Amino acid sequence: MRPVRALISVSDKTGIVDFARELSNLGVEIISTGGTARLLKEAGISVREISDLTGFPEIMEGRVKTLHPKVHGGILARRDKEEHLKAMERLGIERIDMVVVNLYPFKETVKKGASLEEIIENIDIGGPTMVRAAAKNYAHVAIVTDPSDYERVIKELKETGEISLKTRFYLARKAFNLTAHYDALIAEFLYSIDEEGNPVNCREMRNPLTITFEKVSDLRYGENPHQRGAFYKEVFIKEPCVARAEKLHGEKELSFNNIYDLDASFGLVTEFDPQTDGIACAIIKHANPCGMALGKTPEEAYEKALKVDPVSAFGGIIAFNAKVTPEVARLITERFYECIIAPDYDEEALEILRTKKNLRVLTTNGLDGLERRGVDSPFEYRRITGGLLVQDRDLITVDPEKLKVVTDREPTEREWKDLLFAFKVVKWVKSNSVVYAKDGVAVGIGVGQTSRVDSARCAAEKAKMMGLDLQGSVLASEAFFPFRDSVDEAAKVGVTAIIQPGGSIRDGEVIQAANEHGMAMVFTGIRHFRH
Amino acid sequence: MRPVRALISVSDKTGIVDFARELSNLGVEIISTGGTARLLKEAGISVREISDLTGFPEIMEGRVKTLHPKVHGGILARRDKEEHLKAMERLGIERIDMVVVNLYPFKETVKKGASLEEIIENIDIGGPTMVRAAAKNYAHVAIVTDPSDYERVIKELKETGEISLKTRFYLARKAFNLTAHYDALIAEFLYSIDEEGNPVNCREMRNPLTITFEKVSDLRYGENPHQRGAFYKEVFIKEPCVARAEKLHGEKELSFNNIYDLDASFGLVTEFDPQTDGIACAIIKHANPCGMALGKTPEEAYEKALKVDPVSAFGGIIAFNAKVTPEVARLITERFYECIIAPDYDEEALEILRTKKNLRVLTTNGLDGLERRGVDSPFEYRRITGGLLVQDRDLITVDPEKLKVVTDREPTEREWKDLLFAFKVVKWVKSNSVVYAKDGVAVGIGVGQTSRVDSARCAAEKAKMMGLDLQGSVLASEAFFPFRDSVDEAAKVGVTAIIQPGGSIRDGEVIQAANEHGMAMVFTGIRHFRH
Repeated sequence: MRPVRALISVSDKTGIVDFARELSNLGVEIISTGGTARLLKEAGISVREISDLTGFPEIMEGRVKTLHPKVHGGILARRDKEEHLKAMERLGIERIDMVVVNLYPFKETVKKGASLEEIIENIDIGGPTMVRAAAKNYAHVAIVTDPSDYERVIKELKETGEISLKTRFYLARKAFNLTAHYDALIAEFLYSIDEEGNPVNCREMRNPLTITFEKVSDLRYGENPHQRGAFYKEVFIKEPCVARAEKLHGEKELSFNNIYDLDASFGLVTEFDPQTDGIACAIIKHANPCGMALGKTPEEAYEKALKVDPVSAFGGIIAFNAKVTPEVARLITERFYECIIAPDYDEEALEILRTKKNLRVLTTNGLDGLERRGVDSPFEYRRITGGLLVQDRDLITVDPEKLKVVTDREPTEREWKDLLFAFKVVKWVKSNSVVYAKDGVAVGIGVGQTSRVDSARCAAEKAKMMGLDLQGSVLASEAFFPFRDSVDEAAKVGVTAIIQPGGSIRDGEVIQAANEHGMAMVFTGIRHFRH
Repeated sequence: MRPVRALISVSDKTGIVDFARELSNLGVEIISTGGTARLLKEAGISVREISDLTGFPEIMEGRVKTLHPKVHGGILARRDKEEHLKAMERLGIERIDMVVVNLYPFKETVKKGASLEEIIENIDIGGPTMVRAAAKNYAHVAIVTDPSDYERVIKELKETGEISLKTRFYLARKAFNLTAHYDALIAEFLYSIDEEGNPVNCREMRNPLTITFEKVSDLRYGENPHQRGAFYKEVFIKEPCVARAEKLHGEKELSFNNIYDLDASFGLVTEFDPQTDGIACAIIKHANPCGMALGKTPEEAYEKALKVDPVSAFGGIIAFNAKVTPEVARLITERFYECIIAPDYDEEALEILRTKKNLRVLTTNGLDGLERRGVDSPFEYRRITGGLLVQDRDLITVDPEKLKVVTDREPTEREWKDLLFAFKVVKWVKSNSVVYAKDGVAVGIGVGQTSRVDSARCAAEKAKMMGLDLQGSVLASEAFFPFRDSVDEAAKVGVTAIIQPGGSIRDGEVIQAANEHGMAMVFTGIRHFRH
């Protein structure tokens, strides 16, 4: 297809003058609108106003300018159909072979915190219509929506005098990809407010569900080398998270598994407030913590976390909920880790970490916005073949007022502290999960067994092998105990208090077991399955 | 807002006659197009043709009929702006206060396997433009896209004489949710073919990425009771899977965790061809197999799978790759399971299973379409906070020709069989994972530990507790052994052959360990991390 006439109407004016000039030089007539027309004219390019083509003025502050049959007939006419060509002739419709359009900056308007009125005004109607019409008719028309494609189009036109079907198809699917993204963002925004423009508390799980992301980067591969992988982020996300983190150091790019582990690690440490709970350090391997502890300093937290399982820690991911100090940076460089993430780094600490060429150092640039958890991004997705499971994110935390002591004995103050700590940690361990904790250290982490008692047993054995004493520790379970067996196992290794949701039909039996062993047991009423 | 004039143009004509009649009776002038206008006129409703409003004929076989400033000025005019009202008056634009539009059946056209030409023709241009324009102007206009909203609108009009802002906003966000879905489907379709219409082998991981789903059902809750949950399916999926499965029995609805487990169970059993590999039975708990075996009959496979861990099997999910027989149905009803999924059921078997009130029985209605794995639905998604990791599905299977025996000793024929079996099973176990197998039974399943040797150790201990003999078994590991420790552990419990990807810098050491123990070891060159 050799274009005779191009319609140009762009919000993002990057490169448009050069592109239009090249087209014009190649003999393509340029039709344009409003601001774009002015810009091109000022650059000395010969431009015909759209109102000249339609015979209809631009009205309502630009709300209606291109929505005209002379425009859309010119775009949509099938050049291989006699009837279409006759209609053009009869009605004086001129063919439009190329459409160069990008859309009102809806996303940017929302992101800058504009008023509802301004946001609504930035919902483009004419633009998407031209984009969609031209993309539908890709058999005859080229639709250019991305300034980065200008060069390709001009090159092809210069070399072949045409725009090939292959290029037109490439441009068309890109165009529908753009309008899908655009409308998905509009829908997402509208579902985040009520009719007065106030934020809604609890977003609807709508039908259909369309979710949209921007690519951060392609990845070397996916979970495994034979799978391609890519990393995407949400457009309106504001909370501190891996998807928004900045890489301060590390030549190697983040891998699929790094990102997944970083996400889990940062989620876990930010369960704890550095001011009130203490500084948290988590070491993650295969999306599960293999070390987790609180400390007065990052170095104390790190050293305690490392002791839980120094074998697994090899090649792991480290996260902190507070500024990384030179002291802990020095300790970290003594061993091999893949990545570290924290809200902030002391400058000297950063220098020390930079001595490790392959250690990727990430920062969330503070913790501001943590209170927005679940506001901008309320949903968690779980992929299944041919579908998706959608749920609210698991953002609930235990209200200490609502905890129920179910045993004869109340937990001691020290036990209480460890129980609350352990129940926050166990939330981040894949089910079935149990966590043994003592003095703010997760001394035993039982991961992912198909039966709860196995998780309890594996973790206890691991702790023993690591030379950690479970005597006087507490135990957290992310779901209820179906039988008393786990309580009996816990007693054997010296556990003195247990926290769990409760709710089993055998709760009575389980409580009795705790009483027999002189344990304190607390029910949370909250389960934290994580698969 | 009290509507004076409504524009009605629908592809799905459900309920439209009654709705239009009610509107007409309420004094609303009806403007309509083509087929809709004919239908309403035949029903005796007074209708004005759109060409009468625009003064422009419908052309190009309906490609251009509503794309006119008199239509879009009438929809988009802000009734609170003097300038907009003046433009209307000056240009003879009549206000359109309600738009009733649904879109060309793009989805249905693709699904019925129509030609590319027909599919392209079913990309609606005029419809989405009216929908979007009216939705943008929800402050003054009502956009009705869903026949199930007709009743609500009429009721409100009758009761209040108006359509409230609340309703208009509800309709507007629904409208953008529809156009987002519509364009996401178009983009998805266009990215699945090349410019000639041929299917592409390897779909682009595009930027931006917009994915869309239809809701199957709301769920009682998500992974945990404090999280809402919903179940969605892809529109163009054709392979047999849980998202498309049919429930034959079971009053209780499927839970979030049921669906997730069913998906894993069906993925695992369909790794095996019932004709050539044998009948496979998997028992899944917390997304991991706690039992998995091959047999000549379903009952043999089930009984062997159950023996692996009858404790964990309680409340689990069962899957078969073949027809469920009365014999195995009887065995299944002896115990408590949540769900069962299989490609088919013997009628008597179904009767037996129906005696368990709460057992959900699902069928994929055969295995046709398994060869389409990765064609209609090529991607796997992994949610991270504020983003998404996207990767190709892990659909690779080991090519026996490419396996490399790295030890002095070759596996025996029996070992070969178990090695290939075990490597398929270990792919479906959460990392770090190892599987001990013997005679087509996964006698030890090591799940999700942060260190590989721990997974090997936990699984061996579990097998011992279950009274299963690992002597003469083989071992599969989903990723390479970083150290020789796991090989030494395996030797201790009687493993005689190992299969693993290879590729560690300590492969030499690991192979030497295998040779010292007289083991055979096979490298696959393929890793199967699954987190």
